[in-house]
Amino acid sequence: MTTPTRAAVDVVVVGSGSGGKMVAQQLAGAGRRVVLVERGYVGGFCPFLACVPAKSLLLSARAELSWVAARAVRDEAASHRDDSGAAAQLSGDGVEVVRGSATRVAPGVVEVDLHSGGHRVVEAAHVVVGTGSASVRPPLPGLDGAATWTSEEALSAADLPDRLVVLGGGPVAVELAQAYRGLGSEVTLVQRGPHLLSREPSWVGGVLADALTADGVDVRTGDPAVEVVDGGLRLESGAVLGFDRLLLATGRAPVTGGFGFPDDWLTEAGALRTDARCRVVGDDGPVEGLFAVGDVTGVSDYTHTANHQARTVVAELLGRGRDADYSAIPRAVYTDPTVFCVGATSGARSARFEVRQVERADLVELSRRREVTGAVELFVDDAGVLVGAACVGPDADSWGAELALAVRARLDVDLLWHHVRAFPTWSEAIFPALEELHGASAP
Amino acid sequence: MTTPTRAAVDVVVVGSGSGGKMVAQQLAGAGRRVVLVERGYVGGFCPFLACVPAKSLLLSARAELSWVAARAVRDEAASHRDDSGAAAQLSGDGVEVVRGSATRVAPGVVEVDLHSGGHRVVEAAHVVVGTGSASVRPPLPGLDGAATWTSEEALSAADLPDRLVVLGGGPVAVELAQAYRGLGSEVTLVQRGPHLLSREPSWVGGVLADALTADGVDVRTGDPAVEVVDGGLRLESGAVLGFDRLLLATGRAPVTGGFGFPDDWLTEAGALRTDARCRVVGDDGPVEGLFAVGDVTGVSDYTHTANHQARTVVAELLGRGRDADYSAIPRAVYTDPTVFCVGATSGARSARFEVRQVERADLVELSRRREVTGAVELFVDDAGVLVGAACVGPDADSWGAELALAVRARLDVDLLWHHVRAFPTWSEAIFPALEELHGASAP
Repeated sequence: MTTPTRAAVDVVVVGSGSGGKMVAQQLAGAGRRVVLVERGYVGGFCPFLACVPAKSLLLSARAELSWVAARAVRDEAASHRDDSGAAAQLSGDGVEVVRGSATRVAPGVVEVDLHSGGHRVVEAAHVVVGTGSASVRPPLPGLDGAATWTSEEALSAADLPDRLVVLGGGPVAVELAQAYRGLGSEVTLVQRGPHLLSREPSWVGGVLADALTADGVDVRTGDPAVEVVDGGLRLESGAVLGFDRLLLATGRAPVTGGFGFPDDWLTEAGALRTDARCRVVGDDGPVEGLFAVGDVTGVSDYTHTANHQARTVVAELLGRGRDADYSAIPRAVYTDPTVFCVGATSGARSARFEVRQVERADLVELSRRREVTGAVELFVDDAGVLVGAACVGPDADSWGAELALAVRARLDVDLLWHHVRAFPTWSEAIFPALEELHGASAP
Repeated sequence: MTTPTRAAVDVVVVGSGSGGKMVAQQLAGAGRRVVLVERGYVGGFCPFLACVPAKSLLLSARAELSWVAARAVRDEAASHRDDSGAAAQLSGDGVEVVRGSATRVAPGVVEVDLHSGGHRVVEAAHVVVGTGSASVRPPLPGLDGAATWTSEEALSAADLPDRLVVLGGGPVAVELAQAYRGLGSEVTLVQRGPHLLSREPSWVGGVLADALTADGVDVRTGDPAVEVVDGGLRLESGAVLGFDRLLLATGRAPVTGGFGFPDDWLTEAGALRTDARCRVVGDDGPVEGLFAVGDVTGVSDYTHTANHQARTVVAELLGRGRDADYSAIPRAVYTDPTVFCVGATSGARSARFEVRQVERADLVELSRRREVTGAVELFVDDAGVLVGAACVGPDADSWGAELALAVRARLDVDLLWHHVRAFPTWSEAIFPALEELHGASAP
């Protein structure tokens, strides 16, 4: 083994997913010397094996493309899983990209097992960890011999399975169930709990289950998988579901293994503990010079959360630090109908209104001969401030954004009620829910 | 002539368009005795001859329906221009609907020439005028003998013209040009001024002109029509455009004629002057007991403006008055790309970002093989408060709503910049414009 080379820079970033990449680019743009270490895809999973190909397949299914056409579009959207463009862009931005596995990450130092051979130690005033998350393989007897897919495999597959069983009921599970069904697979979705999207109000999962069922997905909720047997997946009820592929979409866990982080830097779920400035914290407070962004923080598994954390780290390191704000992180699911939730969606006073009751729904139903489903539920605190919203319906990821901003700005029902929404938009569904909360319709 | 019958009620509403209808329904719901006078369609133009059939034709064109199918859908959406359902609903809500022409409208009294014969005088503590607007026929030589359409005729036509010339460049003109082109007409649009949607920033009209041109519409800007000659419409340039129909979409004017309103109650444009409580005002201040809502006020020709004014009148009459707020009335045009503007879109500091640069655009372009165009421009005042926005792009009527709320709530760039928008949504186009205004990318 050769002696590791050493280099001292301003910042070393471990992991080049959306958050890490943004930190590296913006700090390099501000004149800092930045090394970015990546063991897999430069750019992370999102553009190659996660968000981007998933949304691509959903849009292609909706546009009624064939599997072959959809696969070609997916691969084009995912740059054919070739990260050389992303790496070149980073280099052009002044970031030194090092391909290899970080074997030790500590304040001020990162040791890298280089893909090109040898080792390298990079010293830096600041280390930013953005090592992401990985699929969790459920402890299901019989799984080892089975034809399984991780979501990454499902999003880079060459072949369309005739029979796909999706294990899980979260955003990834429902998006892939709808996409593969739309592209021609027979799809069964097995969700352990009583409803899909278990963190959201139960009606949200209900609307989505109805939509998937209408698409032809066999949705099984409240009937947990117990083992893989010859011939399929056996559920608690005794039903055995035959499959050609079993997609494991039962969750992800932060990637912190092998770095030797002390236990007190980690949450119970194994994420790196961070404060509002995205500094890693232990029992004695912030760890000098160590930051974390993205899925590894366990805050919320979204690209836009990672980006917000990245901006927080950049601001901190450029001397204009300000706290991250997680009060209004959108939780979007790009199915049809689309789901868009934000803030607190339980516990508070709430009112709900069905999307199909607005004029836009009539217009769409008539011209597209397509049923509109969904609703908006608003949640307010005792002072009348909007604290959360759950939106389901066509384009909810667009019209729901108004509510995310309202939560972020802590706007109250009175102002929201007194605001004018355009006719005939989907946004009009928001008003009757406000009216109910405002009590304005009472004489 | 028989002696007019007399009746005393709490409120008489003249005109049953969106605003008048809402006033009548809500006040009747609050126990007031309400008479609603309508000389034409109960419910006004919007559901039968304006917004609703226009949006229906646009959606049908986008869904690539045939003219015959689109016409059927349009007629279904417009209740086959049968207002008996709307009238029955109002009666069911406790409103007395009187079909006839109001010949005199004054505080406390309305005289009606009944369609069923005879006259009727209705006395009321309060009179609400919602008489709407009517198409203005341009003073164009040779127009009288020509095969013209008003927008109402274009939205209830039995036949598709082979060659349609649209005169005008406002919202109605561009929506109908795109709809008829999509449904198969050869369409030429003639706009006197240099760009479409002349009240909005010129790039908005430019994007729309490009989109219409790509659809196959012949867009002629800055070349005013001078006369109708044998064989077509002659423009200033000398060009003669042959047509089978000439759609007159050059503007609308408030309907106040025949009511004998004093001059000092009217604006220069002929609208009823109103204050923030929607009271009609003359030089001596508010006229006791007389309100106005909708197009007749000249505030803004949108159904949602009329509804906001209606809520203002209802609140006032129910003893919990509050001022109307016109600071953030959306100006939506339902073309593809969609236009959504709000607040002040000139004069202030601004920044613009192209919609096609966000990830969502890539995804849509790849899966639908359709080019994405549009941009968002944000306008801030010296204090950094967002005062206006112009949005053009797919679903801009949905994602633009966030900006309308921001204008209404007077949110500043700093908060908007620090808010998290979901990946990969259209809303992401907002961030770079904010970044430019915020100056946050500077080291």
